[in-house]
Amino acid sequence: MMEYGHGGDIYRNRNVELDFSVNVNPLGMPNFVWEAAQRSIAFCTGYPDSSCENLRGRLSELTGVPEDQMIFGNGAAELIFRLVQEVRPKKAVIPAPSFAEYETALRSCGTEIAFFYLKEAESFFLNISEFLDFLRAEQPEIIFLCTPANPTGAMIRQADLSKILDYCRKHGILLVLDECFVEFLDEKRSCGCIREFLDWETGRPEHGGDLFLLRAFTKTYAMAGLRLGYGFCTSRELLDRLETNWQPWSVSIPAQEAGYAALSEERIPFLKKMRETVVKERQYLSDGLTKAGFTVFHSDANFLLFKDFKTGQESWLYEYFLERGILIRSCRNYRLLDRRFYRICVRSHEENREFLEILKDYR
Amino acid sequence: MMEYGHGGDIYRNRNVELDFSVNVNPLGMPNFVWEAAQRSIAFCTGYPDSSCENLRGRLSELTGVPEDQMIFGNGAAELIFRLVQEVRPKKAVIPAPSFAEYETALRSCGTEIAFFYLKEAESFFLNISEFLDFLRAEQPEIIFLCTPANPTGAMIRQADLSKILDYCRKHGILLVLDECFVEFLDEKRSCGCIREFLDWETGRPEHGGDLFLLRAFTKTYAMAGLRLGYGFCTSRELLDRLETNWQPWSVSIPAQEAGYAALSEERIPFLKKMRETVVKERQYLSDGLTKAGFTVFHSDANFLLFKDFKTGQESWLYEYFLERGILIRSCRNYRLLDRRFYRICVRSHEENREFLEILKDYR
Repeated sequence: MMEYGHGGDIYRNRNVELDFSVNVNPLGMPNFVWEAAQRSIAFCTGYPDSSCENLRGRLSELTGVPEDQMIFGNGAAELIFRLVQEVRPKKAVIPAPSFAEYETALRSCGTEIAFFYLKEAESFFLNISEFLDFLRAEQPEIIFLCTPANPTGAMIRQADLSKILDYCRKHGILLVLDECFVEFLDEKRSCGCIREFLDWETGRPEHGGDLFLLRAFTKTYAMAGLRLGYGFCTSRELLDRLETNWQPWSVSIPAQEAGYAALSEERIPFLKKMRETVVKERQYLSDGLTKAGFTVFHSDANFLLFKDFKTGQESWLYEYFLERGILIRSCRNYRLLDRRFYRICVRSHEENREFLEILKDYR
Repeated sequence: MMEYGHGGDIYRNRNVELDFSVNVNPLGMPNFVWEAAQRSIAFCTGYPDSSCENLRGRLSELTGVPEDQMIFGNGAAELIFRLVQEVRPKKAVIPAPSFAEYETALRSCGTEIAFFYLKEAESFFLNISEFLDFLRAEQPEIIFLCTPANPTGAMIRQADLSKILDYCRKHGILLVLDECFVEFLDEKRSCGCIREFLDWETGRPEHGGDLFLLRAFTKTYAMAGLRLGYGFCTSRELLDRLETNWQPWSVSIPAQEAGYAALSEERIPFLKKMRETVVKERQYLSDGLTKAGFTVFHSDANFLLFKDFKTGQESWLYEYFLERGILIRSCRNYRLLDRRFYRICVRSHEENREFLEILKDYR
């Protein structure tokens, strides 16, 4: 069995009472989703709908993305592996640090990976002119980017994204843009790159690249255990191959039903409250951490990356919290980061206060 | 979107009241499974246990298979694709007709497929001497076999299986033995090839082949919508690669919890009743079909393959039943079969009687 290098491993840490290591929304799974998932068990005798018809129709209605430009998967992570293993690219560019599954998926088909190292001094923001130079030098077939990024929480500026999209279109590159945390942004920005996606065809050059927008229900609706992710893809041909070369029933009935319920009108007040909580509580946690002497990196997401004031070998915050029943994410297994870096998600005010209280005694 | 070539598509057939097209057990999902799945929704805010610890431990306890020789997946179908796409065999042997996903998975990596055509005159049973000759001639890297087989219901005789296992060990072949319907056999035979699996290492030659036993909870516990399959594999090295090259969270929390509950002691009376029902009702359906003039093939599973008494173009039993709110499986998209062939699952006595009543007026 493999070593587990992610957050949320409450199964090997049975004494954990508070899990700050997993990036789901601080309000938990909303009732309207929870009830739909519960009701759905009664229909689970039969197979799931292989084309996710209801979910697809509703998502198309809400986003304007045509139904035949979508794909649903057993979590966004499944789609990363299916996509990479279908394309089998010779060369990829990914930033470091970033979500580990990009690299794992690419390694599984022997892809050469060029890492674009972000700079701590620049708060891990993407330096666009250096990034474009890097692309010119490396000439990848595929690029993975995440915005807001995991584990840093850093956004890619809209103007910079436009330059990257433009570059990919002109150079026949497949850009996988992971927007799994995009719904935590303020409402205006929470659509991510859907407009750019819909405009993709305009003036599309022959042999132009493609855009794959990766999304999940996991984080926004706190339903990580149900597994539901989706993607919007500008290439219908690639989507056809992805469907043809995989089992027809990868999205379970509880996932489909929960996802459909999540897109009901009840989501509107829920998302509003979620965003308010995240903004307020992120600031609260950030202030507390700063006051306690930690370096906190700017985040637009529902989590914070921060750095211990102690030097490498002396940093033991993970163990400190674990002893007190709280799980945080040690970032030492991320490229470029080390055991001084930690990530915590934003939780409810009471839980965050408890976290900061305990933090005070860390020496 | 793809054309759907399987049973159970109640989503495109909304008027269906009775689904005879999907091979799940006639008693439906047992209460002890249903309740566990329902309860589990409350924990779905977090990620699933990536190593399926509870399920793995319990299954090992019940079967004697070591924990590190098991793999769990999002349905058995997922494991077929993961396995094939990991091994990427040059050449495969599969019988025809058989479950379509073997072929789809193999085609997805460009594997050359040699089909061993079963004979209608032999009730689609495997002719062992011809099969071994076929293997000698074709020299595959991988073989898929299913027992009892889908869609025919035919068993491979134990003595014949031993010869095949022996051949694979001697010739470095990976044998994927799909036992997804094995639990419908009488109790004595319902263990399938677990003993052969456990004995595999004894006298294992260098460069020997491997055995992958494919199993599912889907059919036995009527939980197709939850997605849970597993495999026992003699090669730990292959299992490691399968785990490394895939997402860590492919088995959802409801699937893990339902599967764990399914293995509780409550399964014993449930399985007993299921087997009694299948034996009795399969005979009842078989007699009724025979009396109505259809050719019924011998089945040891919870479904029956039969052939219309009409010639090809005149056979319209699928449409006939659909108009009356009943879905059956047309087998015309199986290799070797055509539109005269149909498959139905064994359901409750009342439902089976309704089926046979309606059948009487088919002309």
